[in-house]
Amino acid sequence: MKAEIISIGTEILLGQILNTNQQWLSLRLCELGIDVYHQSTVGDNPQRLAQAIRQGLNRSDIVITTGGLGPTVDDITLDVISRVLSKKLIYSKKIACKINSHFGRQCLKMPRENLRQAHIPEGAKILENDVGTAPGFIVEEDGEAKGRILVALPGPPRELNPMFGRFVAPYLKKKTGSDWVIKVRTLSMTGLPESAVDRKVKDLLKSPPPVTVGIYAKPALIELKIMVKAKNGKAAKALIDKIDRKISARLKKYIFGRDGETLERAVGEKLAKARKTLAIAESCTGGLISDRITNIPGSSKYFKMAIVVYSNEAKISQLDIPPAAISKYGAVSRQTAIEMARNIREISGADIGLSVTGIAGPTGATRTKPVGLVYIAISVPKKIIWKEFHFKGEREMIKFRSSQAALDLLRRSL
Amino acid sequence: MKAEIISIGTEILLGQILNTNQQWLSLRLCELGIDVYHQSTVGDNPQRLAQAIRQGLNRSDIVITTGGLGPTVDDITLDVISRVLSKKLIYSKKIACKINSHFGRQCLKMPRENLRQAHIPEGAKILENDVGTAPGFIVEEDGEAKGRILVALPGPPRELNPMFGRFVAPYLKKKTGSDWVIKVRTLSMTGLPESAVDRKVKDLLKSPPPVTVGIYAKPALIELKIMVKAKNGKAAKALIDKIDRKISARLKKYIFGRDGETLERAVGEKLAKARKTLAIAESCTGGLISDRITNIPGSSKYFKMAIVVYSNEAKISQLDIPPAAISKYGAVSRQTAIEMARNIREISGADIGLSVTGIAGPTGATRTKPVGLVYIAISVPKKIIWKEFHFKGEREMIKFRSSQAALDLLRRSL
Repeated sequence: MKAEIISIGTEILLGQILNTNQQWLSLRLCELGIDVYHQSTVGDNPQRLAQAIRQGLNRSDIVITTGGLGPTVDDITLDVISRVLSKKLIYSKKIACKINSHFGRQCLKMPRENLRQAHIPEGAKILENDVGTAPGFIVEEDGEAKGRILVALPGPPRELNPMFGRFVAPYLKKKTGSDWVIKVRTLSMTGLPESAVDRKVKDLLKSPPPVTVGIYAKPALIELKIMVKAKNGKAAKALIDKIDRKISARLKKYIFGRDGETLERAVGEKLAKARKTLAIAESCTGGLISDRITNIPGSSKYFKMAIVVYSNEAKISQLDIPPAAISKYGAVSRQTAIEMARNIREISGADIGLSVTGIAGPTGATRTKPVGLVYIAISVPKKIIWKEFHFKGEREMIKFRSSQAALDLLRRSL
Repeated sequence: MKAEIISIGTEILLGQILNTNQQWLSLRLCELGIDVYHQSTVGDNPQRLAQAIRQGLNRSDIVITTGGLGPTVDDITLDVISRVLSKKLIYSKKIACKINSHFGRQCLKMPRENLRQAHIPEGAKILENDVGTAPGFIVEEDGEAKGRILVALPGPPRELNPMFGRFVAPYLKKKTGSDWVIKVRTLSMTGLPESAVDRKVKDLLKSPPPVTVGIYAKPALIELKIMVKAKNGKAAKALIDKIDRKISARLKKYIFGRDGETLERAVGEKLAKARKTLAIAESCTGGLISDRITNIPGSSKYFKMAIVVYSNEAKISQLDIPPAAISKYGAVSRQTAIEMARNIREISGADIGLSVTGIAGPTGATRTKPVGLVYIAISVPKKIIWKEFHFKGEREMIKFRSSQAALDLLRRSL
């Protein structure tokens, strides 16, 4: 089966927003074994949208549109699809109720405009939206383009993604009726540059079909993606496991997660399993590590507290760092990092104290201490680990790289 | 003039890479006053690429292709363009030398494959590549599609971006022959749903040319984008200011920034201007507010510290919340939020204390306190403000919405 994706929105053509839906949908369709031959974007213009949908239904089995389902006058997808497919728009009381309760939960009155969203083309399958107000829908063509499928999804990724996973993927899987399975596994690692990872798996990057291994570098994160095609799920898993074992044998200590598992989740799982509690003293990261740790549901089981000491005064009063130590070694120093880790552990009563102090820039550097200099320390009873880092980039990048290094040091120490 | 962008590459259709070129080029074309009506992506397939280019030349004045100019067999752009335009490929000794010296600089021998890149269509204008090996080119149609322009650019952004800036932008500016200036201003606001903003500016959203006003909703953030076209920069600014004043008159208190200014920056500027210092007590937001505040360079001037009290124990020991109050009202209550704000202010010696306590979920809800219930309080000497919120979404979304509401409450209180 061939699919094509049509993104709708003048703001995309103006370059005002980055279109991430096409990549996300293409990946999902690839996993379903469906080929994507075209991606396109048109603005909120009825003629051009109608033409794009007609062309799509003409050359592809499945046309997926994203966007233009909102309540405003700019949102024309519903009307255009109704016209192109010659299907009347039908009012759905069920959708209207759902939209109404969406506003009700926030103690708001539903604006009249939103009632437009309670219509779908006659005969369409409704895709419920659990996040926003716009429902999606699937129409199977019965006229000239018999058998062709049109799937209309909302534009915001946070609405589109769960809707696709819950309704569209199972629907398409059934439609394709294919036994071939494409499986993808991603191995995430940090602490090595891309070129070093590349060198370690050079042979695997050239794997012949049905295996593909790709390397993708992001800031302080390298992903190796294994993709295999096999007759069934079991065979695919066996093949993927084999490649995974080869990679793991070479890069084990750097790999923190699989299939999108975040570093903070890996740390959380290790803490929960070891039944250890954590407290954090942050300076240059400004709360980012604590924010990441608490993104994991259930983190209150192992995370006790954090203090963001953004001034020397706070370091002294909140973490009992001796003023003499700060004047002698500086707030950004191995000595201060160690004191911070030890004292946050004692103050909080946690099993582990983690600390970060550094210079995120653009100001704050001195002759001997450049922007990007960061000290990280971990304190457990009778033991201290510390490490010095030199990070590159802008302020937020240095904060992120510091948080990544701190979480990874913690992960490896557990 | 109308333009369209065609991205070429099977890896984009497979979802293996995120296509950022379309957004980047669309922004540049918008600045040049050139309308983009279509963006599309096709794979490394000669038939489909030829069809896309033909369709493009048929409906647009300018077709810009990106990608497929590399030295491998997958790279078909050159051949396909030569065929579609019926123009022979000519060997350019100048390009060959340039490619050769590109390898020479890295002390490498030029692979034979790269000689393919030394060809361009007859009569084309060469666009030198100072970063990689693939030159770009511009062909002006002289046959049926007389006057139509085809611009072929390499795919990697680090090659495409400088090439566009150095050669293509000046070329197109001359071609359009226009002094017209396009200016965009974005007004960011929070605290109102999209439909409410829509209602307040409905008339402006329908502004006739040369003004366009668009509304873009993100989580806890609404952007109104004003775009105008005028004879010169001064006229454009006057026109934009006029629309801005109209919008501000209706939505003033919700607007926190212009042209991408973040809420945390707006808060920081107000704090710096008022010479006030801030301390934060975070519970359900887990450090996110503090992280956002410290993303702003120079925030150490007004931000003293934060305590992330992720357990009742920490609330009691670090913020002196009376245990009796927690058992009577609960950790998520107006009373606890107020105590947290007051006590963090006293402990830190800051002028302002900000606190957040709530249930980010998915666990932690009770019969009377659902996931998404959040209390925010601000303490200044002799005054307390507090507010109750009911947020929807997953854990991270509730954290983000809480941080947005807290920062906005703080901004409005200043």
